[in-house]
Amino acid sequence: MKSNRPKVLHEIAGRSVLGHVMAAVTKVGAAEVSVVVGPDRDDVAREARNIVPSAHIFVQRERLGTGHAVLSAREALERRPDDVIVVYADTPLVTAETLARLREPLAKGAAVVGLGFEARDPTGYGRFIMLGDELLDIREHKDASEEERRITLCNGGLMALRGDVALDILDQLETKNAQKEYYLTDAVSIARRLGHRSAVVIASEEEVHGINDRAQLAAAERMIQERLRQEAMVSGVTLVAPETVFLSHDTQLGRDVVVEPHVVFGPGVTIEDGVIIHSFSHLEGTHVASGAGIGPYARLRPGASIGPRAKVGNFVEIKNTELGAGAKVSHLTYLGDASVGADANIGAGTITCNYDGFGKYRTEIQDGAFVGSNSSLVAPITIGKGAFVGSGSVITENVPDNALSLGRGRQVIKEDWATEFRDKAKAAKHQSAKKV
Amino acid sequence: MKSNRPKVLHEIAGRSVLGHVMAAVTKVGAAEVSVVVGPDRDDVAREARNIVPSAHIFVQRERLGTGHAVLSAREALERRPDDVIVVYADTPLVTAETLARLREPLAKGAAVVGLGFEARDPTGYGRFIMLGDELLDIREHKDASEEERRITLCNGGLMALRGDVALDILDQLETKNAQKEYYLTDAVSIARRLGHRSAVVIASEEEVHGINDRAQLAAAERMIQERLRQEAMVSGVTLVAPETVFLSHDTQLGRDVVVEPHVVFGPGVTIEDGVIIHSFSHLEGTHVASGAGIGPYARLRPGASIGPRAKVGNFVEIKNTELGAGAKVSHLTYLGDASVGADANIGAGTITCNYDGFGKYRTEIQDGAFVGSNSSLVAPITIGKGAFVGSGSVITENVPDNALSLGRGRQVIKEDWATEFRDKAKAAKHQSAKKV
Amino acid sequence: MKSNRPKVLHEIAGRSVLGHVMAAVTKVGAAEVSVVVGPDRDDVAREARNIVPSAHIFVQRERLGTGHAVLSAREALERRPDDVIVVYADTPLVTAETLARLREPLAKGAAVVGLGFEARDPTGYGRFIMLGDELLDIREHKDASEEERRITLCNGGLMALRGDVALDILDQLETKNAQKEYYLTDAVSIARRLGHRSAVVIASEEEVHGINDRAQLAAAERMIQERLRQEAMVSGVTLVAPETVFLSHDTQLGRDVVVEPHVVFGPGVTIEDGVIIHSFSHLEGTHVASGAGIGPYARLRPGASIGPRAKVGNFVEIKNTELGAGAKVSHLTYLGDASVGADANIGAGTITCNYDGFGKYRTEIQDGAFVGSNSSLVAPITIGKGAFVGSGSVITENVPDNALSLGRGRQVIKEDWATEFRDKAKAAKHQSAKKV
Repeated sequence: MKSNRPKVLHEIAGRSVLGHVMAAVTKVGAAEVSVVVGPDRDDVAREARNIVPSAHIFVQRERLGTGHAVLSAREALERRPDDVIVVYADTPLVTAETLARLREPLAKGAAVVGLGFEARDPTGYGRFIMLGDELLDIREHKDASEEERRITLCNGGLMALRGDVALDILDQLETKNAQKEYYLTDAVSIARRLGHRSAVVIASEEEVHGINDRAQLAAAERMIQERLRQEAMVSGVTLVAPETVFLSHDTQLGRDVVVEPHVVFGPGVTIEDGVIIHSFSHLEGTHVASGAGIGPYARLRPGASIGPRAKVGNFVEIKNTELGAGAKVSHLTYLGDASVGADANIGAGTITCNYDGFGKYRTEIQDGAFVGSNSSLVAPITIGKGAFVGSGSVITENVPDNALSLGRGRQVIKEDWATEFRDKAKAAKHQSAKKV
Repeated sequence: MKSNRPKVLHEIAGRSVLGHVMAAVTKVGAAEVSVVVGPDRDDVAREARNIVPSAHIFVQRERLGTGHAVLSAREALERRPDDVIVVYADTPLVTAETLARLREPLAKGAAVVGLGFEARDPTGYGRFIMLGDELLDIREHKDASEEERRITLCNGGLMALRGDVALDILDQLETKNAQKEYYLTDAVSIARRLGHRSAVVIASEEEVHGINDRAQLAAAERMIQERLRQEAMVSGVTLVAPETVFLSHDTQLGRDVVVEPHVVFGPGVTIEDGVIIHSFSHLEGTHVASGAGIGPYARLRPGASIGPRAKVGNFVEIKNTELGAGAKVSHLTYLGDASVGADANIGAGTITCNYDGFGKYRTEIQDGAFVGSNSSLVAPITIGKGAFVGSGSVITENVPDNALSLGRGRQVIKEDWATEFRDKAKAAKHQSAKKV
Repeated sequence: MKSNRPKVLHEIAGRSVLGHVMAAVTKVGAAEVSVVVGPDRDDVAREARNIVPSAHIFVQRERLGTGHAVLSAREALERRPDDVIVVYADTPLVTAETLARLREPLAKGAAVVGLGFEARDPTGYGRFIMLGDELLDIREHKDASEEERRITLCNGGLMALRGDVALDILDQLETKNAQKEYYLTDAVSIARRLGHRSAVVIASEEEVHGINDRAQLAAAERMIQERLRQEAMVSGVTLVAPETVFLSHDTQLGRDVVVEPHVVFGPGVTIEDGVIIHSFSHLEGTHVASGAGIGPYARLRPGASIGPRAKVGNFVEIKNTELGAGAKVSHLTYLGDASVGADANIGAGTITCNYDGFGKYRTEIQDGAFVGSNSSLVAPITIGKGAFVGSGSVITENVPDNALSLGRGRQVIKEDWATEFRDKAKAAKHQSAKKV
């Protein structure tokens, strides 16, 4: 990856690669989750507990192969659980459905189940050596005979083992190979030696897509986005140009939501029915109620809550702010740490001055208030119900209900000033003498 | 579609699906257009009349099949028109050229003409049973024999009938089938029984693409966008990244227009020669004269008219406003209901305050005026020729030609205030005591 | 191209088509570069010298074919250089590696080397007539026999000739053909007649992609972007959605830079390690130091230099401005011709008023200063270290270190004004009587 960040903490659709894998594990209903991490990988352990707080963390002190990694969780294996499913943290496309299917042959008596896929180009992959439905062995590419290399059913990596025999099998892994490592794949032949049967479950090549470089990361992002977009469209969302819309793993879009081209959803967004999200909008940690209109060029940041039929227009940023039903914030505005009442109108260029270099303060704009354009609302401040703020005002004191407040200079006019200025400016070879 | 909106009113490239079909019908020169709608579908009827004001609307009271739908327009058929072309409202990719071709065999004596396509996968489609050039029958997939299912020439749905015999044929449709519906496709065998000949015209599978869910809607959008982009490029427009540019059905782009990546055109846009549209721009209902520069991040809304060589820069919204030749509006500005004279310069952060919560008012900025940054122009207002407005002014009274007008507070300085503020703020554990 | 601009001056990835070709020529280490241009094509000559200042410009007065074009540079050929490589100005995808490979057969004694490619569809291309490894002739499609047309190894156009014999060969070109033109391709058969051997080097069809219309220009852009994106990802950059990120030929992105979807890089951008570029950002002529955060919706224009860990937020435009380490410019701001000190905080809606219609002036904001929201800083001006500017101020005089400066009107409140205004406005049928 050429990265300072561990591979499994790179993000796809607003969640770490590890997070995707653990979400699938959770979704399939794992009773107990163990995560094996490298030494000094507190960041990975932390992310694992983020997703599954009860996860057991095991540290693999040395890198002695996939089998060794699984055996690092010996304590969990010793509990002889129901079934054991071994999942790799860098295959974020694996689905809960496939994990569930992996368990089926175990229920029918198999001791080991390999996850296979039909490879477009099998070069480099381990091959599944089959006899009818039985998986006899997994042969590494470099150890495979000419004939075996013609096999296209390849090892996708994931494996399920029956919990009552898993540790017995894994304890027989040896390092008698070129790499001197414990290979998890040897579990198949060992199981057979011990008189057990192994089976295979087939997945798509996409589902076992691993991540070893940034191009594979981008490919995984594309495939996961494709899934998320399809799900959205199936549920009754119009994506005008799906390939230009980027969703997060948890984006919730209601029926008859329309998303125009070029929209980005960060994590934590819920959009109710009938909302239109115009082009070039960016939403994160936001709730939008039904019938609202967002964008174009709207940026909704965490804590934004947009009321029913409210409008958020272009070049507007809203953070940690509630917008009441029917409220309008149409242009060039920053609302931070505020609440805006129903049917209030916030003029173009309005800024909530919520920060003084030390603390953050709240602005309250009550129902039906009208804030004139280019106003600065210095928080903490309250604009009362139905109150008006004159354009270009700096408001530092609360405005009572239904009052008008102005805070701006008186206009003066200097006749012919511009004529003189231009003459001087030209005379001074375009160096102006006064400031305007 | 899982939608509250009727399928044919969903939009593609800024026009309803129905609109696309009716535009093709209009373009081929139909003398009379009849539209069959479901009961209580005034919205569909309205949209149909939007595109073709003279369209006759017929209501199909019961859903008794495609033949029944056509017979709902009995009154139109009784006028025994020239030719009858039956078009489905959910096939927006059909072209006027294909509709014209459908009529050709009628001119040569055929009574019925089916529109066929070579299906990549014919499963589910009706098959064209041919004898040489003659269309003998259209066989539904479920009624087809093993051998007939190997036919890949499939029914695209559209049909043309000779006007003098159309009603005679259609009146013989029966409901002797599993669905107990009147199938339009039976017209072929009926025509034959009546001694008439039927023929086939071939179109691409793309052209008969129907819309039954959001994924098919998105696919149709993609195909129509692809057509529009190709047409633009052929006419001498540079689309740096065509796949990121979204056009409307009526977008007009002149020669040597350059459109950078990530641009969206809503309906009603005309761009003259040599204009450059920078990335992240959004235009709708707008005219841009030659040599102008737009964006990046420019939003031109309906009624914007940008003069020759004018510049509209980033985070600028222009609505219902004329910009004169060579005028510049470079940054963070909202111009609504305004006119800006030639060579005027509108500073960053300028806002036309055109709305007071009740009415909308106009701003007139005359030739060569210079509006300083962060100014608020409270409409109705006129800034005279060559006048200057000082930065940060709120302007409520007209400014005469060549005058300077200021409307802002006098600057005061409080020495060492910040030092004290910081001390206090830190002392109060980051709770500031004063507002700034 | 249907363009007023010469084909080779159209741009791809921030550089002219010609520029791409000349960059490859420079990269392969050409000792001398000659450029043949049409009459009155000073613009092309100028662009050529832009890339390679020492380039010799030759004018081809008449359009008498490719051989004639090369012979227009007779003076250069008469210097009998080492090797001669003939490159077309409209094949911007050719790589320096391929140009180097073209020279290899010359070193082994070949007099002429053709660049071939395996055509997906050879129709229209010249065919390479081979005998073993020897290139016997290049046959134009229209002159080729049925059998020759089955050849798929086609002429990519580029050619290398041994410098000691190049002119001797080219001087024998004749116009005995349908077009009455001098064909460069005849060099192969002439060389053979003179007792020399010709050889072939194979490239991909992509690499010899020529540009004759806007669709081919867009295709070239796509292929070059694809190369640039791959290079970036290989070097340790995360492109979340590579197909939505547009790079320039010279974009430099450090390790662990993350580029979110929908970002455009113009020429001259360097981004250091660990920077995140959020969606909808647009950068050109900009340097961003490590650990900074950019966007979303940030526009960095030429001369922007963003310090380490600085933040540039949404709807912010920065031009010709240095931002110190840890400085923050988070929202709706224009900074032009300014310097901002370390850890300074620029509030939302701040505008540097750097232009008065004639000259441009500088703004200096020193370390740790805090500029309140919606302020206008009228340049030339200095905001001292640790100074505060109150929100909504117009600042025309320098602010000393650690002072507070305010420049805004005093707030007044008119009780119940809004109630009366609304009553009047409604009475006047929504025509308001006063301005706010």
